[in-house]
Formats: sequence, structure tokens, C-alpha cells
Amino acid sequence: MSGVHMTLDELRALARAKLRVVGLAPDHADAVAETMVSGERDGCASHGIYRLLVAAGSVKSGVAVPDAVPEVSEPAPALVKVDGKGGFAQLPFERGLPLLAEKARRHGIAALAITNAVHFAALWPEVEAVTQQGLVALAFTPNHAWVAPAGGTKPLFGTNPIAFGWPRPGGDPFVFDFATTEVARGEIELHRRAGKPVPETWGYDAQGQPTTDAKAVLDGAMRTFGGHKGSALAAMVELLAGPLIGDMTSSESLAADGGRMGSPIGGELILALDPKGFLGANLEDRFAAAEAMFAAIEAQGARLPSARRYAARAISLSEGVTIPAPLYADIMAIGSNQ
Amino acid sequence: MSGVHMTLDELRALARAKLRVVGLAPDHADAVAETMVSGERDGCASHGIYRLLVAAGSVKSGVAVPDAVPEVSEPAPALVKVDGKGGFAQLPFERGLPLLAEKARRHGIAALAITNAVHFAALWPEVEAVTQQGLVALAFTPNHAWVAPAGGTKPLFGTNPIAFGWPRPGGDPFVFDFATTEVARGEIELHRRAGKPVPETWGYDAQGQPTTDAKAVLDGAMRTFGGHKGSALAAMVELLAGPLIGDMTSSESLAADGGRMGSPIGGELILALDPKGFLGANLEDRFAAAEAMFAAIEAQGARLPSARRYAARAISLSEGVTIPAPLYADIMAIGSNQ
Repeated sequence: MSGVHMTLDELRALARAKLRVVGLAPDHADAVAETMVSGERDGCASHGIYRLLVAAGSVKSGVAVPDAVPEVSEPAPALVKVDGKGGFAQLPFERGLPLLAEKARRHGIAALAITNAVHFAALWPEVEAVTQQGLVALAFTPNHAWVAPAGGTKPLFGTNPIAFGWPRPGGDPFVFDFATTEVARGEIELHRRAGKPVPETWGYDAQGQPTTDAKAVLDGAMRTFGGHKGSALAAMVELLAGPLIGDMTSSESLAADGGRMGSPIGGELILALDPKGFLGANLEDRFAAAEAMFAAIEAQGARLPSARRYAARAISLSEGVTIPAPLYADIMAIGSNQ
Repeated sequence: MSGVHMTLDELRALARAKLRVVGLAPDHADAVAETMVSGERDGCASHGIYRLLVAAGSVKSGVAVPDAVPEVSEPAPALVKVDGKGGFAQLPFERGLPLLAEKARRHGIAALAITNAVHFAALWPEVEAVTQQGLVALAFTPNHAWVAPAGGTKPLFGTNPIAFGWPRPGGDPFVFDFATTEVARGEIELHRRAGKPVPETWGYDAQGQPTTDAKAVLDGAMRTFGGHKGSALAAMVELLAGPLIGDMTSSESLAADGGRMGSPIGGELILALDPKGFLGANLEDRFAAAEAMFAAIEAQGARLPSARRYAARAISLSEGVTIPAPLYADIMAIGSNQ
């Protein structure tokens, strides 16, 4: 690939600098940069350094408060709440994580709710950070109403991802993170740009009819994965990471956006369970049973959910990454015309 | 339908009596009977009074300990553990629920693990019971290794259901409960009995080949729903309600069964979140947002997950239920030839 080769440290320095240039407070800039570097490192181009353009746009358009000071509170002994005050979600997560981990260890289980924060990233960096504390993690977040419930054809749910992490002694954690839609919204966008038709199973047009026109799906409604089961999970994500924590449903979030087409502002719920809680001295034996299950998955030739990311990570850590030339040019232009 | 008409009270009395006749201790008999009556009441024939035959068989064959005394412990401030001591899971749940609710209210979130218990029922009666306490519920349980991971063709996971419940002020809760498989195992069994072929998407034969032979799938491996996403969720259920709580994976459970073909003996994890925890005074407004979402689902002509069960329930409560004549005969024969 033609592009600019960089070490991860160089990429991090560039991302931090550019985010400062657009006016993000230093602590926000560093937290947001870390997420983008993680994405690029793991071969997730769509959640990688490309998001610098998205984040810069969110600041410029006033969607994200650049110097928001996250407010941490403890509404109950096993609950942590961080009000993002309209800024990006990364710093609120960083501020809440130590308390979440401490509470999970003390009580066996704990929950962290991030509210009123701008979300543009994947959930796996956050569940992975929880597993690095030796804890099991579950995470949910709604976004904008782009997805029809099974049995309907009108947008109501967000793409509503669910992520899970399980710490693996001496290795990368077992982590998955997926949207509850048939396909990622970015995938439909790629088809639109390429002028390619999409399968009829991906969504409906604005009149509620099945369509193979990518733009019509983006203007209409995406479908949930797995029929009524995926739809039920999408509704659960709405409830858990919206109303339950005092934040918006995807429908309310899209209405609040008021046509700006900005990144969603809303809630995220992260649960943490301490394996020592139920297991005590039995921990080693039961973690070995989990490892046996992972081995049995791979012995069938099936892949663990994050295998591709970890393979890309290993290469990026030793060899650095290559940023496509056009993207690099766009990044370098950030701030030059402000 | 030709059969025997009964009120729910009559059905309950019959179920309790028959479970006592087979040797189940009275507290177990009452708890198990309640689950079966709930299934029959809600029109779930496969989880209804038919399960009397299954439960009676489990006691007779020694799979379930008929007079097990559940042992309740509190391994951490927000954790409840109930060791089922090899008996049915219903009584351990009953014994653990008050403590789970109390801990969820005190800490904001809590978890109940039931271990070493015999499972034959759906999860929705349990999440519904949690919602009756005004709490939000999530439940998971593995069972026997009958399901291949996505990308593989050999049995490893159980059918691994996930259930969720959200209390609705003045109405039936929002509840879903589904297996993470493409189709219920019982559905494949029905096709086998009827000599009907199954779709190729349902499973693999013992050689790992796609097949339309229902018996071959039962002897081979079922598929997860939604491809790799359903498979990831199935793995999560294994980890959360198996190793994390000190119990078995579905693979270990099937091995422990030793070919008896008995109901699975193992774990179940139930999480409870108190809406008052994060919401405080904001509760009414955010529960109204959830209601608005439910209304928007139904306004599209889509159904809420448990709508069919609640409709059946309303009829059963006013009119009673009809037990098919052959099933009634089988039930009446329980105990007569012991």
C-alpha cells in the first residue's frame, strides 16, 4: 500500500498534536488519540486514525464540548456514574475505570455508566481495559435511530453494539464487540460510495420496502442481525445504556442531533465482574476450563472473535503501521485552514 | 383440541401431587410445579406440564437429587451463590431471589449464581420474577454440548439461552428469552418424529457435513443463530454461567452426564440492576422513555418479545387450560407403576 509508514509512538504523537490543534483539551486529546491508535494498530481502519477527521469535525461543528470536565459520582456502593458533560467518551471512561475496578473487587460486581458523552469509537478498547484489571466485562451503547425492529421497517434502534471481555492469563483477552445489525453501517456506506448494490437482507428504503440501493437503506432503515433475536438484543441495549442510566434512547438521540449528522451523544453501560468473587480458590481450575473451551474452538478450525485484531496488533507493534497517502494528507491538513 | 380442561389451580395441585409421588421433597415439588404451570399457562407446551414426565424421569433415573437442600452463601457483598446440591434449579432460585433483590437495592447491582442444579426449564420465569421486584434482569445458562461454534462443525456449546427482563409500571414486563441457536432443539426433535427434513442451516451431521436429516443434526451439531455473532454470545454464556461461577462448561456437563441423556446439571447466572440506582428522581421520566420505545415498536406493527405469551396467559387465567388427552393419560400414570 502506498502511504506513510509510522511507528505507533509517532502515530500517537501526531494524533495528540492534531487533536490539540483543533482545540481539544490535552487530557481529552490524549484519551481520544489512544483509542484511534488502538484501532489503527489492530487493523480496524474504520475505527483507526481516520477517526481524527471525524473527531475534528465534531469539535468544529460544536457537537463535542472540547474542554468538558467529566463529573464522577457514586450513586450506589457498586455503581459509578461519569457525566461526560458533552465531551468525548474516552476521558470519562478513563476517569471511571479505577473506581469501577475497585468496586467490582470489593462487591463482586459493579457497573459504570457514562452519560452525556460523544461516542464515535468501538467498545472493545473499553472491555479490553477492564480485562486488564483481571475482570470480566460487558458493555453496551445505543447511538442514532437507524435500525428497524424485527417485524417493522422504520428506524428506531441504533446499531447498538454489545461487547464482552474475558481475561486470559498470560495472553490476549477473549473479546468480542459487534453491532446488533445485519451489517455495519460503514459497510453500507462503502457500497454507496462504490455504487454497488447491497443484499436485500440489509435494510429497507424510507417507504419500508426491501431494497438493494445502499443510499436508500441509509435514508431508510437497517435490519437487525438474526431476526427477532438480534432485535430483542438491540432493544435491551437501548434500555440498559439509555433509560436505565438516565440517558437517551437512539430515537431521542437522533432527535436531539437535530439534523447535524453528528456523532451520537448519549450513554454507555459497562458491567464488571470479579472472577475471584464466585471462584475464590477454585479460580485456577475454572479458568483452565475456559482455556479448554477456547482450545476446542480453535481445534475445529474456528477462530476466536478477536484473532484477526490480535494478529494485526502483533505486526503493528513490531513493524509500525502505514497510513494511506490520501488519509495522511487529510490529517496533515487538520488545523491548517482554521 | 380433545383433552382435559382444568383451572390453573387444579393443574398446580395435580403437578404438586405427582411430583411428590415420584419422591420429590415438598418444597422442591411446589417450586418445580410452579414453573410448569407458568409454561402451560403461557401457551409454551414444550415447557409446560409435559415437563412433569421429564422431571419424573430425572428423579427416577437418579439425575436429580429429590431432597437436595440448597445452600445459600454470600461470597461478596453484591454476590449470592446457591449451591443446588444436585437438585432441581427452581428451589435454589426461590431461596436466592430475596437476597439478590435486597443486594441489588443496596448496591445498585447484584448477581445470583445457581450452581450444581438440574435445569429443564426456560429462563423467563426467573427474569420475570426479578422484574416483579422492580429490578432489571439478565440471565444465562449453558447446558449440554450440542452446538458448533461458527466456523466449526463439532458440538461444543450448549443451546445457551439469554434472557432479559425490564419492569413496566402497571403492565407485564418486557421479557425475552431465546436460545443462541438457529432453532430450538425441540423443533429439530419434532421434525425427526414427523420424518420431515430440516433446512440445511440448522446443523451438521456427525461427520461435520451440512444435512437435512433431523436425526443426523441431533447426533451431530446444531448451528448458532446469526453466524459468528450468535456464536460469540454462546461462548459468553458458557463463560459467565459456567467457569465464572465455579460450574461446568456444556462440554464438561455432557461428559459428566456419561450418556444418561439426563437434563443438564450445572450453573445459571442472574444479574439484577436497580433502576433507582442510577436514576433516582429521574426514574419516572426515563421509564416513560422506555414506554415510548415499546409503543414505537408496536406502532410499526412489530410485536414485543413476550406478547404471544401474555396473550395466552390472559386466556388461561380466565378460562383455564386444556391438557391433551394422551399427555393427561401419561401424567396420570406417573407413580402408578413405581
